[in-house]
Amino acid sequence: MKDEQGILFILSGPSGVGKGTVRKQLFEEDSELQYSISVTTRQPREGEQNGIDYFFKSREQFEEMIEQDELIEYAEYVGNYYGTPKQYVKDTLESGKDVFLEIEVQGAMKVRESFPQGVYIFLFPPSLEELKNRIIGRGTESEDLIRNRLMEAKKEIDMMDAYDYVVVNDEIERAVRRIQSIVVSEHCKRERVSKQYKKALGSE
Amino acid sequence: MKDEQGILFILSGPSGVGKGTVRKQLFEEDSELQYSISVTTRQPREGEQNGIDYFFKSREQFEEMIEQDELIEYAEYVGNYYGTPKQYVKDTLESGKDVFLEIEVQGAMKVRESFPQGVYIFLFPPSLEELKNRIIGRGTESEDLIRNRLMEAKKEIDMMDAYDYVVVNDEIERAVRRIQSIVVSEHCKRERVSKQYKKALGSE
Repeated sequence: MKDEQGILFILSGPSGVGKGTVRKQLFEEDSELQYSISVTTRQPREGEQNGIDYFFKSREQFEEMIEQDELIEYAEYVGNYYGTPKQYVKDTLESGKDVFLEIEVQGAMKVRESFPQGVYIFLFPPSLEELKNRIIGRGTESEDLIRNRLMEAKKEIDMMDAYDYVVVNDEIERAVRRIQSIVVSEHCKRERVSKQYKKALGSE
Repeated sequence: MKDEQGILFILSGPSGVGKGTVRKQLFEEDSELQYSISVTTRQPREGEQNGIDYFFKSREQFEEMIEQDELIEYAEYVGNYYGTPKQYVKDTLESGKDVFLEIEVQGAMKVRESFPQGVYIFLFPPSLEELKNRIIGRGTESEDLIRNRLMEAKKEIDMMDAYDYVVVNDEIERAVRRIQSIVVSEHCKRERVSKQYKKALGSE
């Protein structure tokens, strides 16, 4: 019973909530999901392979992709472009494999425009106090910067309403288990599977 | 963050699909869910306790409950009444505990009238062949009876569209894991939790 399309899962949430850590842990435990490979203009680091870690492109190539609308979303960090390639995501989904994207809140809202049928998961801090500690713990940011980032995070939390699920990151293992449960249960949604199940029964 | 109501989960599906076996296995592994205790007019068997295994009632008491609309659904099997007590389910949900009901397709549709907000899970046979084998395997039913039951099962499968999830019972352990995933992910649904999460953040 596997002529089903893959499902696009998008993990997002305010900065400092721990998206990257949760995503890494998830992929250590799970081999069914396909992590969405980003396109970037930054130089490959030692051991990084094109088409596995990233799709490495020149700045010109990347800007050409922007122009041709080949990216679902993109952003620029410290002088380098990062983006999500539309065709790659589409092809993977069509092959029946789920695709998993971990992305900032702004980017997630962009993805929603192209993939409204995706499953949007909002990673939620266990408390504001905790979020503050994590932002502080990251490095040597000034008081002002921390206050700004916290205000930013509060604004991002208000965007929770655009998501399908909210997962509290109280503990990495538990957050990962919740996300795994969402993946399994989304595959059991009646509107996704009823047609193919009825067909399978009818043809026997 | 636990001022949430419990969620009512209803496991149903065609006869012969293995609802009872899956439910028993689920409750051996899971102590968070509260199995809905039925009301019955049959005699307690040795070791069965009132209020734990069943609510034992006389025929008169049961019929009084029917009259007073105190049952979500009920049915009569081999001379005894069995029913689901409305107040008990409501109280358990209000205490914040999930309630789990395992029930025939007809009964599930009755439950839906009282609890449209419940989560309806349809247990699905891996194939018609397998369902037939299970119906035959149960005992010494005649060919005609088997054909009837299979036709009945096909009709019941058409009622799948009234459900939220479809879980294939290809293997008990896997079906149980899928149901557990549905329970976890339903608790992460944004429309269930966003209000309380925002409140929790605002109050800090």
